[in-house]
Amino acid sequence: MKNKINIGIIGGSGYTGLELVKILGNHKYSNVRFITSRKLNGKKLGDEFPSFLQSKYSNLLFKAIPDKSDLKSIDILFLCLPPKSSMEFVKDNYGKGKFKIIDIGSDFRLKNADDYKFWYGTDHVVPELLDEFTYGLPEVNKEEIKKSRNISNPGCYPTSVLLGLAPLLNSSYRLENINIDSKSGVTGAGRKLKEAYLYGNLNNNFYAYSASGHRHTGEMEQEIKKICGYGLKIGFTPHLLPLNRGIFSSIYCKITGAGDIKDNVINIYERFYKDSIFVKFLGENIPEIKNTAGTNLCMIGIDYDIRTYTLKIFSAIDNLLKGAAGQAVQNMNIMMGFDEDEGLKSTCIYS
Amino acid sequence: MKNKINIGIIGGSGYTGLELVKILGNHKYSNVRFITSRKLNGKKLGDEFPSFLQSKYSNLLFKAIPDKSDLKSIDILFLCLPPKSSMEFVKDNYGKGKFKIIDIGSDFRLKNADDYKFWYGTDHVVPELLDEFTYGLPEVNKEEIKKSRNISNPGCYPTSVLLGLAPLLNSSYRLENINIDSKSGVTGAGRKLKEAYLYGNLNNNFYAYSASGHRHTGEMEQEIKKICGYGLKIGFTPHLLPLNRGIFSSIYCKITGAGDIKDNVINIYERFYKDSIFVKFLGENIPEIKNTAGTNLCMIGIDYDIRTYTLKIFSAIDNLLKGAAGQAVQNMNIMMGFDEDEGLKSTCIYS
Amino acid sequence: MKNKINIGIIGGSGYTGLELVKILGNHKYSNVRFITSRKLNGKKLGDEFPSFLQSKYSNLLFKAIPDKSDLKSIDILFLCLPPKSSMEFVKDNYGKGKFKIIDIGSDFRLKNADDYKFWYGTDHVVPELLDEFTYGLPEVNKEEIKKSRNISNPGCYPTSVLLGLAPLLNSSYRLENINIDSKSGVTGAGRKLKEAYLYGNLNNNFYAYSASGHRHTGEMEQEIKKICGYGLKIGFTPHLLPLNRGIFSSIYCKITGAGDIKDNVINIYERFYKDSIFVKFLGENIPEIKNTAGTNLCMIGIDYDIRTYTLKIFSAIDNLLKGAAGQAVQNMNIMMGFDEDEGLKSTCIYS
Amino acid sequence: MKNKINIGIIGGSGYTGLELVKILGNHKYSNVRFITSRKLNGKKLGDEFPSFLQSKYSNLLFKAIPDKSDLKSIDILFLCLPPKSSMEFVKDNYGKGKFKIIDIGSDFRLKNADDYKFWYGTDHVVPELLDEFTYGLPEVNKEEIKKSRNISNPGCYPTSVLLGLAPLLNSSYRLENINIDSKSGVTGAGRKLKEAYLYGNLNNNFYAYSASGHRHTGEMEQEIKKICGYGLKIGFTPHLLPLNRGIFSSIYCKITGAGDIKDNVINIYERFYKDSIFVKFLGENIPEIKNTAGTNLCMIGIDYDIRTYTLKIFSAIDNLLKGAAGQAVQNMNIMMGFDEDEGLKSTCIYS
Repeated sequence: MKNKINIGIIGGSGYTGLELVKILGNHKYSNVRFITSRKLNGKKLGDEFPSFLQSKYSNLLFKAIPDKSDLKSIDILFLCLPPKSSMEFVKDNYGKGKFKIIDIGSDFRLKNADDYKFWYGTDHVVPELLDEFTYGLPEVNKEEIKKSRNISNPGCYPTSVLLGLAPLLNSSYRLENINIDSKSGVTGAGRKLKEAYLYGNLNNNFYAYSASGHRHTGEMEQEIKKICGYGLKIGFTPHLLPLNRGIFSSIYCKITGAGDIKDNVINIYERFYKDSIFVKFLGENIPEIKNTAGTNLCMIGIDYDIRTYTLKIFSAIDNLLKGAAGQAVQNMNIMMGFDEDEGLKSTCIYS
Repeated sequence: MKNKINIGIIGGSGYTGLELVKILGNHKYSNVRFITSRKLNGKKLGDEFPSFLQSKYSNLLFKAIPDKSDLKSIDILFLCLPPKSSMEFVKDNYGKGKFKIIDIGSDFRLKNADDYKFWYGTDHVVPELLDEFTYGLPEVNKEEIKKSRNISNPGCYPTSVLLGLAPLLNSSYRLENINIDSKSGVTGAGRKLKEAYLYGNLNNNFYAYSASGHRHTGEMEQEIKKICGYGLKIGFTPHLLPLNRGIFSSIYCKITGAGDIKDNVINIYERFYKDSIFVKFLGENIPEIKNTAGTNLCMIGIDYDIRTYTLKIFSAIDNLLKGAAGQAVQNMNIMMGFDEDEGLKSTCIYS
Repeated sequence: MKNKINIGIIGGSGYTGLELVKILGNHKYSNVRFITSRKLNGKKLGDEFPSFLQSKYSNLLFKAIPDKSDLKSIDILFLCLPPKSSMEFVKDNYGKGKFKIIDIGSDFRLKNADDYKFWYGTDHVVPELLDEFTYGLPEVNKEEIKKSRNISNPGCYPTSVLLGLAPLLNSSYRLENINIDSKSGVTGAGRKLKEAYLYGNLNNNFYAYSASGHRHTGEMEQEIKKICGYGLKIGFTPHLLPLNRGIFSSIYCKITGAGDIKDNVINIYERFYKDSIFVKFLGENIPEIKNTAGTNLCMIGIDYDIRTYTLKIFSAIDNLLKGAAGQAVQNMNIMMGFDEDEGLKSTCIYS
Repeated sequence: MKNKINIGIIGGSGYTGLELVKILGNHKYSNVRFITSRKLNGKKLGDEFPSFLQSKYSNLLFKAIPDKSDLKSIDILFLCLPPKSSMEFVKDNYGKGKFKIIDIGSDFRLKNADDYKFWYGTDHVVPELLDEFTYGLPEVNKEEIKKSRNISNPGCYPTSVLLGLAPLLNSSYRLENINIDSKSGVTGAGRKLKEAYLYGNLNNNFYAYSASGHRHTGEMEQEIKKICGYGLKIGFTPHLLPLNRGIFSSIYCKITGAGDIKDNVINIYERFYKDSIFVKFLGENIPEIKNTAGTNLCMIGIDYDIRTYTLKIFSAIDNLLKGAAGQAVQNMNIMMGFDEDEGLKSTCIYS
């Protein structure tokens, strides 16, 4: 039996923070020492979110900010903060303990400070620390994660897209004209109080947004280049689905070549994911959001339209799990030497 | 005041047939003489579908098939039948009256019998009549519709896609790599009793289907060629949305050229649709399904990603209205010389 | 052909105001002269709410407040304002024209100023005008409405409940232990920006609210007494449904007596509603919200549990139509001598 | 560390069976030996229901019926079968092993064979075994459950209602005029292929059903009598909610007495449930379905309307967990001496 590890959570009252607490409540080796929320300072988790009453962390009290001693006491610190807040927190607290950081936010994903400024519209406040955070997509760079000091956890859209593309990027096929049409449930936007997110506006509705350039594009292009070795520009368009959890990405690209391309591609995916417990490759079957809801799985199916040489790749995840808190725990498990799926089993919703 | 016209409806108990009755109930010049449904033979419309109690057609009785005298009595016959049933009905009844036919089904859209066989998997039974039906997309060929004997009403997906592409196809830009990602509400599939369509399976769910080739692809390519004058292959992928009404098509294509492409494209769309009362071009704003629900409108917005030369065209319609019964009545209005929007005003849902 | 009437709308940008505009756009004799909204001052209806683009009122400009000449120009003024705002508006503007007022808000429903204070927590500012407004529930007091100066339009819950109870209250049965369990879609709460109304909080959710006493209770008890002639206290509990439009009220009460009570009750309802075009009595069948959506209909079904002497009355309406704007236009039609259903036909949604 | 127990599941492919497998996958001491489904005979759980891929039971193969040796090998047998099938299975297999049965179906809940015939319309085939099954509502009769041979697991509606009423039934208050208005998500009806359950019919819809007498009424009255010691007839009316999981019961009854009734009632509930880990009494706060989804919790709130002497009790559960499989595992835990919440922690959905 392994020892428990001590954990701190910064920003625990949002969708991602709560999903993280939920997972850690099922994790044999977790010991959450503190959880922060400025808004819920002094409140008890199980009182504020009664569905957590049976969680082993039901009695945790939110605090506004961690004390010095809190930071000294932990092995892992999860950051669940909006853009800019992550880097500010790191700036103020880096090195105040021996803890590893897993940043579920977006501030340490782009490795080039200019890219950060381009996509986020502001200067990075600790560019010198960018390289201290490994982009943690275990199906692509598990060995690197094992040895990492800190992790920047991939964005929800990039997770669904990169897992969809990685086998091909890693193959001898050359991709052209990549267009990605992603659709996300509303928890992807957090719990923001905006008129657009009212039930009356989203029920029975659907639309695209950020069509002129979503921030996750830069993150995807950076990682695509790392995998395939050459630069590729992608078109990316997110849409909002009338449901709570889930991302479905439809990835279109052109590939040509000898032989039966569909068969070749299926072989490539099967080989690439044969040891990945959280990716289920379905061959020519199409994944459904529902089957991934509540799980840390990414399900992928493909089709090839020989009339237009278009490869269609379909990828589905739960944005709060494989797209956020689940993958963060998967990264923790890898870094700490636990089973990769510890805490991540049998949580599906399916109905 | 114009004279009323006598109307017959074949297949009136499905979603499309009922939407048609609803519109005609608001149409000043409509006089529905009969409505058929094998299943509801002898039943009264308002009893079977109580939301029609205040319709002027509430007391219509469904009959199994029209009599000879029924067919003699009408000016317009709407067909709301599944694939294959339309052409069988036409085979048996063509010429049995002076009526014009508006076929909301799919059997007379493809003008080449070989294409029909390729996409529908069966021989056409009256190929000699294919040219008697004009493909009725008023924003593209209104003049032709005016003079037509019969109309084949466009499919729901093709309507949303062709209206999205027509201005460009009609321009000097040359489109490449057209990939269309369409999302439809569940009424698009009719009222079929399949496990996949149970509430428990679709609520909170989303997925693609027919990724290896949907029938509407052939219809779109045929009409694209008519508009632009040269053959273009398109990639088309439909998806199922957890809502009842609406189609949202995201159309991706590559265009290059001199000048500010986005501005040029906006000008092209504005000019093309300046006299089309049912198409609202939103410029760089993105349409929403909700705003088209219950209306005969198609709303279109565009964006141009200069990084990848990708033009993104977003098109939203109500699949039962502009995608079916609404456009059918628009076609009737044009053929009969009524105001184009007679019966099609103020029916929005919006909440 | 009757003359058109001139209409003003105060508070036109909320759900009720928009539904009113939608109906009036279908009304042969309507001529909307102005529509107000402080927030949308100077904006065009069709731009702000593009689903109104085909309405004949698409080009109306919202203004902040009506001018003197606006008020002089109209025959009918609709108020679509929140509690307290209605009476303030009336206080400032009563008598500034020859117009009749139809107040869709709640300020003139309670006829006793003490009752108003009890249920609304504030003094009425024009108690002397309370009797100038007739409670406008046409199925109960149509003759009175015809002769009225102004109308206070019933609340959405009271409409569904009073129509459910009226036949019995009017009969020789004596009701005991009335408990009403009502469920409303979210448009009933208006377009308020509250965390509770976010999509993420309401999708997949359901709960009761205001269980210790909802304001509509007083309104219902007042009208019940008017119908049956004696005072009756009722228990009323509203709930929030995860859908946009519709109210379903389940009314439980104890009745005893000789003969077959169920048959007797069915006869009573059939007789009471035989001439009411907007109430459909279904006998022992149970109404569905969906069948009333988009219509001005109230559908009612009953059952009798002989084991407990409990009569169950089920009543369904569209809260924005029969529960608000639809009934307001029905009242206008009655006052103005138009057909009772002018503007209110064939607007069902049903899918 | 306790020993694992061997488990068999009959009827494992429905909503309840799958929820059971999900819970047991999180249960430290579970060892599922077999799972049956006639329809999925030979298929693998994780293939048919891919959201179970990370469950420890992902590789289980469905079999049509259990072998003799299967039945010999197990300690616990769960039955997840429709009415009538349970008793047939028990008739054929009772005593063919040393296993205890937990019947999640309805056939062994009514202890009087005449009652069974009255509510289920058929003779019970093994009336002599009815007393071998203890009605397993742990918050009411945990001690009895501990010593029981077999369990009949309560129905979903009865669980929500009995937990709502039990403290009062156990008190000195005398209840009158009990009317129960329950609302259930669609998984309560199982995965039946009926037109009424199509997405197009339930989305945006709501209605009551079985208003003349639902089978669960008899079960509730039987257990009410056991708790309070005297017979009480109840009015019960179920409704169908447009969501997947959850039951919300609004219970109305009349109580009178000295003192502050609301305070007294709150005290009674607090005392009754102080040791019940799965019931959260919220005092005057109203529970929400969302907060119970994915948990084995029942949340209860009350209010008292002094104007009508009506006590309102609101009770929310997840119909598949506390209303079915969760409570079944809770019963198993109690019988086997495990922690009562083993396998039932941290499974909330909440978003």
